[in-house]
Amino acid sequence: MGVLELDYSQYQTVYNVLSLALASMLATFIFLLVVQGRVLPRYRQALVVSAMVCLIAAYHYYRIFNSFTGSYVAVDEGTAAAAMDSMTYVLVNGEGFNEGYRYVDWLLTVPLLLFETIAVLALPRAVRKSMLLKLIPASVLMIVLGYPGEIAVDNVTKGVWGALSTIPFLYILYVLFVELSRAAKDQPTQVGKDLNGLRWLLLATWGVYPISYMIPMFGIEGADAFVWRQVGYSVADVLAKCLFGLLIYKIAREKSADDSATFAEEELEAAPSSK
Amino acid sequence: MGVLELDYSQYQTVYNVLSLALASMLATFIFLLVVQGRVLPRYRQALVVSAMVCLIAAYHYYRIFNSFTGSYVAVDEGTAAAAMDSMTYVLVNGEGFNEGYRYVDWLLTVPLLLFETIAVLALPRAVRKSMLLKLIPASVLMIVLGYPGEIAVDNVTKGVWGALSTIPFLYILYVLFVELSRAAKDQPTQVGKDLNGLRWLLLATWGVYPISYMIPMFGIEGADAFVWRQVGYSVADVLAKCLFGLLIYKIAREKSADDSATFAEEELEAAPSSK
Repeated sequence: MGVLELDYSQYQTVYNVLSLALASMLATFIFLLVVQGRVLPRYRQALVVSAMVCLIAAYHYYRIFNSFTGSYVAVDEGTAAAAMDSMTYVLVNGEGFNEGYRYVDWLLTVPLLLFETIAVLALPRAVRKSMLLKLIPASVLMIVLGYPGEIAVDNVTKGVWGALSTIPFLYILYVLFVELSRAAKDQPTQVGKDLNGLRWLLLATWGVYPISYMIPMFGIEGADAFVWRQVGYSVADVLAKCLFGLLIYKIAREKSADDSATFAEEELEAAPSSK
Repeated sequence: MGVLELDYSQYQTVYNVLSLALASMLATFIFLLVVQGRVLPRYRQALVVSAMVCLIAAYHYYRIFNSFTGSYVAVDEGTAAAAMDSMTYVLVNGEGFNEGYRYVDWLLTVPLLLFETIAVLALPRAVRKSMLLKLIPASVLMIVLGYPGEIAVDNVTKGVWGALSTIPFLYILYVLFVELSRAAKDQPTQVGKDLNGLRWLLLATWGVYPISYMIPMFGIEGADAFVWRQVGYSVADVLAKCLFGLLIYKIAREKSADDSATFAEEELEAAPSSK
C-alpha cells in the first residue's frame, strides 16, 4: 500500500512519528512493569496487562517502522547532495509498506485494553465476568469486520464492512457508558471521575480510526492523505495505549489508597501530620 | 541533514560523543531503576520517571548513532590504507542524517523532566497539580514551536519561530524560579540548596539548545559547525538527563531521611552516635 512518492518533509514526518510511537510504547511498557509494587496486589493484573499492550504495540511499531524505511528509497532530484530538501522518496516495488501490522496489533491489544479497564475496578467476580463476556467478543468482531473494508479498493465494499464493524463498536460504547456506570456506581469519587476520563479517552482515540479509515471514501488521496493517516493512527495509538495505561495506573493507586490506610500513608506525599 | 564531508577527526568526534551519550543514558537508566528501594515509596515516582527519561534518550541516541554511521561513507584519499587520517567521510544520498530524533526525544523527555522535578518535592496535591498544569503545556509548546525553525533554511523564519519558542521557555523559568520557590519554602535546607542546583543545571543545559539552534544564523556553517552542534547537544543531553536524574535521586534520599528516622538510621552512613 502506501503512496508512490513522498517529498522530504512528508517522509521525515512519517519516519519521526513512527519512531515517537515506538519510543513511547517502550518507555510505558517498562514503566508499567516497574511500578507494579506501587499498587496493592489486587490491582497488579491490570498493570501487567497494560504493560503487555504497550509491549505488543512496541513490537508492531518496530515492524511498521522497518517496513516503512524498507519500502522507500531516496532519489536525489537536486544538484547538490547537501540539499536534502530536494529529495523525494519513491516506493520500491517489493513487499511495500505493510498496514496489516496495525490490524494484527489491534486484534491483540483492543481486547486487552478492555480487559484492563474492567480489571482495575476490582468489581465483584460475577459482574466482571459478565462485562468481559460482552466486551471482548464484541471488540474482536469489530476489528475482524473492519479489515476487509480497509483493504478493499471500492467504496461500496469499504462502506458495507465499515458499517458492519460499527455495530459492535456501538455495543461496546453501550456496555461501557451504560452498564459499566451501573456496576461502578459504588467506586470512590475520584475513581469515578477517572473512569469517566478513561471512557472518553477511549471514545476520542478510537474515533480517529474510523475517520482515518474513511479518508479514501471522501476522495482524499495521495501523499498528504497517507501522511496524515499515519500521523493520526500513531497519535491515537499513543493516547489509547500509553496515556490509557497511565490512567489505569492512576486509578489503581487511588483504589489502593482507598482500600488501605497503610498504603496511603507510605505511598502518598508526606502529609504534615506524618512528621 | 548534516554536511557534505567530514575529515577523519571530525567524524571520530561525532561518532564517539554520540556513543558516549548512549552509554551514559543506558547506565543511568539502569542505576535509577536499581536504587528505587533506597528511597521512601513516596519518592519512587520521581525516580522511575527519571529512569524513563534516560531510557527514551538511550533509544534516540541509538537511532541517532545509526543514522550518523549510515549516512557517511569513508573515502580513502591517501596512498596507504593504514593512513587513517587521510580518510574523509562523505554524506551518502539516502535517508541522510536525521536530526528529527532530537526533537522527538525532547517532546517526550522535557515534560517528563519537569514532572520529576515537581514529583520529588512531594508538595501538597493541589500545589503539585497547579505547577504541572503550567509547566507541562509550556514545555510542549516550547518544543513544538522550535521545530519549524530548526528545519527552516532562511534566517527570518528561523528567527520568528525561535522567538516564539522563547516565550514558553521564559514562562517555565518564571514558574521554576519564582512560583516554585514560594511553594518549596518549607523544604529542608539541604533540599532547598539541591533544588537550586537543579534549576541552575536546567537553565545552563537548556541554554545550550538555543545557542546550537542559532549557529546557522551567525553565518557559521560547514563541518566544524556541524561537529560542534552535535557535541553541544550531546553533552547538554547527558547533563540535563543523567546528572539531573542523579540530583533527583540525591534530593529523594535527603527527603526520605528527613521524613523517617528509621530510614536515616538504616540508609545513611553510620553516625558517631549509632556506634
